Amino acid sequence: MAHQEKATSGVEWRITLEDGSSKSLVPDAGPVSRIWAGLGGLIAGLVLKVREFLRRAWDIGVDDPRKVIHCLKVGMALTAVSLFYFMRPLYNGLGGNAMWAIMTVVVVLENTVGATIYKCSNRVFATTLAGFLAFGVHWVASQSGQEFEPLITGASVFILASATTFSRFIPSVKALFDYGALIFILTFSLVTVSGYRVDKLFDMACQRISTILIGTCLCLLVTLFICPIWAGEELHVLISRNMDKLANSLDGCVDEHFDYNDEHKDSDKQPDKKLLGYKCVLSSKATEESMAKFARWEPAHGRFNFKHPWQQYLKIGASMRSCACCVAALNSCIDSENQAPEFIKKHLSNICLKVSSSSSSVLKEVAKTIKTMKRSSSIELLVEEMSSAVQDLQHEIKSLPKLLSPPEVLHPESKETDDTTSTIHLLDVIPVVTLASLMIEISSRVQAIVETVEELAELAQFKGEVQEKEKQNQPNTNRIVASQLNDDQQTVKALERV
Amino acid sequence: MAHQEKATSGVEWRITLEDGSSKSLVPDAGPVSRIWAGLGGLIAGLVLKVREFLRRAWDIGVDDPRKVIHCLKVGMALTAVSLFYFMRPLYNGLGGNAMWAIMTVVVVLENTVGATIYKCSNRVFATTLAGFLAFGVHWVASQSGQEFEPLITGASVFILASATTFSRFIPSVKALFDYGALIFILTFSLVTVSGYRVDKLFDMACQRISTILIGTCLCLLVTLFICPIWAGEELHVLISRNMDKLANSLDGCVDEHFDYNDEHKDSDKQPDKKLLGYKCVLSSKATEESMAKFARWEPAHGRFNFKHPWQQYLKIGASMRSCACCVAALNSCIDSENQAPEFIKKHLSNICLKVSSSSSSVLKEVAKTIKTMKRSSSIELLVEEMSSAVQDLQHEIKSLPKLLSPPEVLHPESKETDDTTSTIHLLDVIPVVTLASLMIEISSRVQAIVETVEELAELAQFKGEVQEKEKQNQPNTNRIVASQLNDDQQTVKALERV
Repeated sequence: MAHQEKATSGVEWRITLEDGSSKSLVPDAGPVSRIWAGLGGLIAGLVLKVREFLRRAWDIGVDDPRKVIHCLKVGMALTAVSLFYFMRPLYNGLGGNAMWAIMTVVVVLENTVGATIYKCSNRVFATTLAGFLAFGVHWVASQSGQEFEPLITGASVFILASATTFSRFIPSVKALFDYGALIFILTFSLVTVSGYRVDKLFDMACQRISTILIGTCLCLLVTLFICPIWAGEELHVLISRNMDKLANSLDGCVDEHFDYNDEHKDSDKQPDKKLLGYKCVLSSKATEESMAKFARWEPAHGRFNFKHPWQQYLKIGASMRSCACCVAALNSCIDSENQAPEFIKKHLSNICLKVSSSSSSVLKEVAKTIKTMKRSSSIELLVEEMSSAVQDLQHEIKSLPKLLSPPEVLHPESKETDDTTSTIHLLDVIPVVTLASLMIEISSRVQAIVETVEELAELAQFKGEVQEKEKQNQPNTNRIVASQLNDDQQTVKALERV
Repeated sequence: MAHQEKATSGVEWRITLEDGSSKSLVPDAGPVSRIWAGLGGLIAGLVLKVREFLRRAWDIGVDDPRKVIHCLKVGMALTAVSLFYFMRPLYNGLGGNAMWAIMTVVVVLENTVGATIYKCSNRVFATTLAGFLAFGVHWVASQSGQEFEPLITGASVFILASATTFSRFIPSVKALFDYGALIFILTFSLVTVSGYRVDKLFDMACQRISTILIGTCLCLLVTLFICPIWAGEELHVLISRNMDKLANSLDGCVDEHFDYNDEHKDSDKQPDKKLLGYKCVLSSKATEESMAKFARWEPAHGRFNFKHPWQQYLKIGASMRSCACCVAALNSCIDSENQAPEFIKKHLSNICLKVSSSSSSVLKEVAKTIKTMKRSSSIELLVEEMSSAVQDLQHEIKSLPKLLSPPEVLHPESKETDDTTSTIHLLDVIPVVTLASLMIEISSRVQAIVETVEELAELAQFKGEVQEKEKQNQPNTNRIVASQLNDDQQTVKALERV
């Protein structure tokens, strides 16, 4: 207590000292130089912050150069659309409405092809529909006389704006026409309300629609033909990369737990890498969903057909997240304070490492299947290896009591001793048993992942690896070929296993 | 088998009969009535679909009437802004630029107050900044002669559009000014490019900015004063509701596992409710983040100050997700095929139920703390209860071998029998041990949740429950009071604990 008080007064005293010293120093320097020093510090701080900001921006650019390319594409498209203003014949044709082209380009041009097409089609469709509807309302309003016109116009704006806004809350509408609903309200209000003052409404609407079409076409050209970034491709890569990450984090987490070598001293990055893995999987749901939403607007590109089963990727993502949840639980079990004694850990380390490595190699093979879009010829073998490793693990746990109790069993007459030691043993075994059953659970979830990927292979008609190399001697159907290994390969694998 | 065949042929026969009868019927009816019938079916199908759609929309509206109110607000604001067109003096003042007010209302008016303020401030700030910058560029361009003007304008549009688009990829910019960056590009291009043709650029810009200001103010008025929906309040409610859901799903999941009564036959909704709980928690990350993003734009409202620690809610959400992950693992352990024999389950059911019910009552108390924004006086007690239940569980597991082996221990001479039975016992125990250690893990994560909520209480200066009742005998500062129980209470606690 006294010590604490002393410390507090010490702090106060030092503060007083600093205050005093600053007071005795400042008059020497003069107020002008004080301001200069303050300004200098401020500017230095600002420069530092700006440099830090630019460095981070540079890192983002280096990390994913396609982002830079996207920015250049936006700049290019905008400059191109500005030409309409500079070229007199085009300007005369379109008039002041050319600004709609600029606005379209700014609002519609997105990072991925799918998002751009989604926005373009929504914009064109909604503008046209709203335009026609607004004409109808305007005609009705203009027929009903001077005093009713504002009333009818206002009421129609109110009703349609409310209804359309509400439709944006309905999931099926939101998924497909969220942006369209916004544009619908915008165009409808603008045209209906303008109709009250503008005489050549039809001309104006035509000009507006044509400029929007120009902007849309320009966006589509730019997004499709200059370094296109496909949402589908992104989703595909994201899923297979996350699968790899999950495999690595599973491996890393179990490895670290059973690693008794000096190696793990130099692996400072291990925990980071391991953590990143399953956390990336757990947090990528929103990205996956938006990618899948945009991917279905994309035409056939690269290896993907128009009707590529993008929804199946979401299922794979969900099964990966459920596996990542288990890895997270495993991770926290490993991090917890209750640790099994070394000799039990040592005894189980081999088989546990085998389960984790076989599970992660199944995951990696599945990731490869997705990446290459070819059915793997070895996946069944790997899954079998995994299940046999799991069975070995179960067997090993079964045999644990045998290993633990021999010394006590040799002296059966000492009943009390026996009892207490076996008690201790069961407690000791708990962390290992938990670890083992979590790993068994993980392997069953890995199996679920394999099944969802199998479904994807089915839906997207992935080709078999073998089928590509030797099509002639396989009279069977696709499915059997793909899931079957030829003999040579199996022999090689069997040798490798030995 | 024979029965099945019979049934199949029966079905076929009936199909043939129907075919035959339809063939004999249709010529009687003639092609016209066939078309009518087809059309009737089509219309009936369509009507059914529309009815289904409307029913779902109705459900959404009934579920959350504030969505309907938001829609009416949008309709109202749009109708109000349309008045500018109908009233001649206002129209003459603003001219055709009144459409910018409509556009602003459509684009800026969002569901929550925070989102609207975010968009409004971004729009006004970005428009003003871009307007001034565009004036500067226009001035430079106009000074540099006829042939350089388009060049300079084009180059500036290209550079600024690219740079601003890139800035949207930087997380710190994206969090605060994503929408502003878009508006900046839009306004800058429009003003710079228009400058080439429009003579009275300054007048136009002023009109535009004033109409945008009118739209913005209208949006702010509508969103702030007509049934405001606060993003912060939403986040607050979401977190406390999710906490309750997590507690219920933990309870439900363990209850169901140990429930031997006939009661669980009528609880058909149990699995649904239980699943919904932790899955809601796992999937609400994106919602939480966007709510927290918008909440910090909101002024003080209701029980929340301007600088309410919204970021802390994200931490609470993260700790809840990590707990939900464990509940998910627990759930799948319970669902797995390996089940402990009934007598072990029965033996442990009481203590397991105690751990789960104490954990869930801690969660519920924490949820109440958040809901009422008052420090709970009983939380410490509940946490202690939970830890003592966990200790009991650990103790119970420790005593499991004693319970299991007595018959064998009584005949120590039969070594083989002893060995095999103890083997079986360990295997039997695995599911229960896993369950128990997952529950211990869950309780430690519940503790982590309690800590994050404590931090929130500290940051947001929640008041104590008791403090409200008896303020007179507390001369200390708010903060110390809040983190301290008064002596009476502590005595009561100590008594209760004994």
